[in-house]
Amino acid sequence: MSENIKICPGYQFAGVSCGLKAGGALDLALLLSDCPAVAAAVFTKNKFPAAPVIYGRRQIAEGSKLRAVLINSGNANACTGHQGEVDVVTVAEVLAASLGLSRAEVFISSTGVIGEPFPVTTVLNGIEPLIADLGQKGVVSGTLASAAQAIMTTDKSPKIVGIEVETSQGCVTLTGIAKGAGMIHPDMATMLGYLLTDAEIDRQVWQEMLQRVVDKSFNRISVDGDMSTNDTVLALANGISGCCLASSSDLALLEGALLQVARQLAMMIVKDGEGATKVVEITVVGVAGVEDAEKICRTVANSALVKTAFFGQDANWGRIIAAVGYAGVELKPELVNINFDQVRVVSGGVRDPQYREEEGAAVLRQAQFSVKIDLQSGEDEFTLLTSDLTHEYVSINADYRS
Amino acid sequence: MSENIKICPGYQFAGVSCGLKAGGALDLALLLSDCPAVAAAVFTKNKFPAAPVIYGRRQIAEGSKLRAVLINSGNANACTGHQGEVDVVTVAEVLAASLGLSRAEVFISSTGVIGEPFPVTTVLNGIEPLIADLGQKGVVSGTLASAAQAIMTTDKSPKIVGIEVETSQGCVTLTGIAKGAGMIHPDMATMLGYLLTDAEIDRQVWQEMLQRVVDKSFNRISVDGDMSTNDTVLALANGISGCCLASSSDLALLEGALLQVARQLAMMIVKDGEGATKVVEITVVGVAGVEDAEKICRTVANSALVKTAFFGQDANWGRIIAAVGYAGVELKPELVNINFDQVRVVSGGVRDPQYREEEGAAVLRQAQFSVKIDLQSGEDEFTLLTSDLTHEYVSINADYRS
Repeated sequence: MSENIKICPGYQFAGVSCGLKAGGALDLALLLSDCPAVAAAVFTKNKFPAAPVIYGRRQIAEGSKLRAVLINSGNANACTGHQGEVDVVTVAEVLAASLGLSRAEVFISSTGVIGEPFPVTTVLNGIEPLIADLGQKGVVSGTLASAAQAIMTTDKSPKIVGIEVETSQGCVTLTGIAKGAGMIHPDMATMLGYLLTDAEIDRQVWQEMLQRVVDKSFNRISVDGDMSTNDTVLALANGISGCCLASSSDLALLEGALLQVARQLAMMIVKDGEGATKVVEITVVGVAGVEDAEKICRTVANSALVKTAFFGQDANWGRIIAAVGYAGVELKPELVNINFDQVRVVSGGVRDPQYREEEGAAVLRQAQFSVKIDLQSGEDEFTLLTSDLTHEYVSINADYRS
Repeated sequence: MSENIKICPGYQFAGVSCGLKAGGALDLALLLSDCPAVAAAVFTKNKFPAAPVIYGRRQIAEGSKLRAVLINSGNANACTGHQGEVDVVTVAEVLAASLGLSRAEVFISSTGVIGEPFPVTTVLNGIEPLIADLGQKGVVSGTLASAAQAIMTTDKSPKIVGIEVETSQGCVTLTGIAKGAGMIHPDMATMLGYLLTDAEIDRQVWQEMLQRVVDKSFNRISVDGDMSTNDTVLALANGISGCCLASSSDLALLEGALLQVARQLAMMIVKDGEGATKVVEITVVGVAGVEDAEKICRTVANSALVKTAFFGQDANWGRIIAAVGYAGVELKPELVNINFDQVRVVSGGVRDPQYREEEGAAVLRQAQFSVKIDLQSGEDEFTLLTSDLTHEYVSINADYRS
């Protein structure tokens, strides 16, 4: 994390320990906008949405402008039934009262263990120290760093990205924080992301922009193929810069910057995937139909055998071929080519005659590399970032709750 | 493995080392019927079928009666292109000539690494010692045991099942061997199974019976969710008992026995799943539509997070709920119940008020237990056997080729 990361003006941050996590780890974060911010959000598609997701979805649908975002780790408030929903309202009301806001201006997120009763008193007791902690300080040891740390679960390090972008209306800033680790998949499982800007933008335009950006960033990563009950990406635009972005060129600049921030956060999530030692970009090209390209890409990226081969630095392309073959897509085996980075491994469905095992192994020894699968049957393609499957993954997930 | 296992009359077995595997391990097996046997088979649906699968599929479609089955481990002869197919024919011709058979009577299977050129000379050199080894001896140290061992890859132990069944036409025997371990999934990935009987039966009836039995046995297990290029279940009926089974009651008896043999082999495969320490039966009931029940069942059984929780003996039902929720099936969260064996864990989508963590943990400490998910929304159900995801799984698969 570098001090070069730009912190968006007009927001304050806080992160404290309220006792949800053992050992005094930070577990409660607050993001506060100096004025009501236009809000957009993308939520999990899981059929068991957590209580704060149910609450937040309604809030966003109603078009509420937001001032405060409260996020706790240590308890997901998922599968907690009616009581869980009551608890969200209670927390939002107390926070709103403490800050002199209306309840509709307060957004709530939770992450952690599913199905435990939500410890509402513990969270309420944390609100006062949290507000006292508010500040707009640096990303290494400031309150932004504390906030980014307080939302972590099995993450090893906080994830913060911040950039500036020049528009025709002046310079605006985009700052994002995220948490990821396990259960990362198609629909951003157990993934929380908060993207803040000081630009001014129309709410509908902002929502559509966020959806496109999420589809190309957080929805393009896969750690273990599981999708959680709590995934949320929230984007706030408080307009404090005075730059009102409405022209198509300015909106394109903003969207490019938002995508850059989201992609950097997504990459950090994959790198920090539970026990991951490798980041692998899987690209499937030459497919007739993007759905089929996506299907193959996700099947390869989620194959336990492929992912353990990456961990073993084993250029076992047969496992990749096998995964391509059971993805449920019609294809011509005799046309399929596979590259590891620049090394052609498979040509026409069989081992390339020039390929030497040592070349493939050299690619896999890198911390980051790409696998490209070409079906030579169309113009569509799809790309995902994935990680390897390691001993540490098993350790982390076998022991997570104990 | 017990000497009580019934060995089907009219078949001989052999298993030798021809040098495909390192260290002199058995790697070439032969099953020989004393007379031409009616043959049925079910093959992988992988889009990259191995050369012997392409060859065998044609042979079965043509209705060839079979005398000999040659199986090698150590090399899958998959993704080997035209040369791989030529190699199958060569091996079949040499074996047929050595045994005085026609080539159409010889069936070939391969399992092992994908994409390496098939070492045809090594296999051919093994044929003479293999034939010399033929015998119909016991299952502990006899040639049947050698054959069952020679087809293993990462399996820890050979898998042999044999039973007798009384029909109106007399007693018939069913003996099966199988190999499994990694890549076990919906369509019997890297799974080979050979089911032998001395009953006489119509070819078409036999094929349909086998398909039904496979759907209820080998297709109901999942170790890592991958499906291989080589999966094959072959069933031979040589009629040597003189019992011609044609009445519906006799056929029902045979099918029941075939299912029993196949299920026992499937259970052995899951128990021997790579690094597995647990066998877990996942049952989804109360669903409107068996496809939806299957979808949920497979999603839960293949979730890396669920499987590591089983390994950790962690009664983390939240991960099961999350997997149910992302299976892509419409459901009412507030109706969902979950049991671990007899212990009710979730009622109406939330933790059962009577549930105590210690009860769930006690169930998970067993080597074998069941998870039952009830959607309370219909009459359909689906069941799968799965295993846990362990450190040893990662070790085995990271190092498999080295």
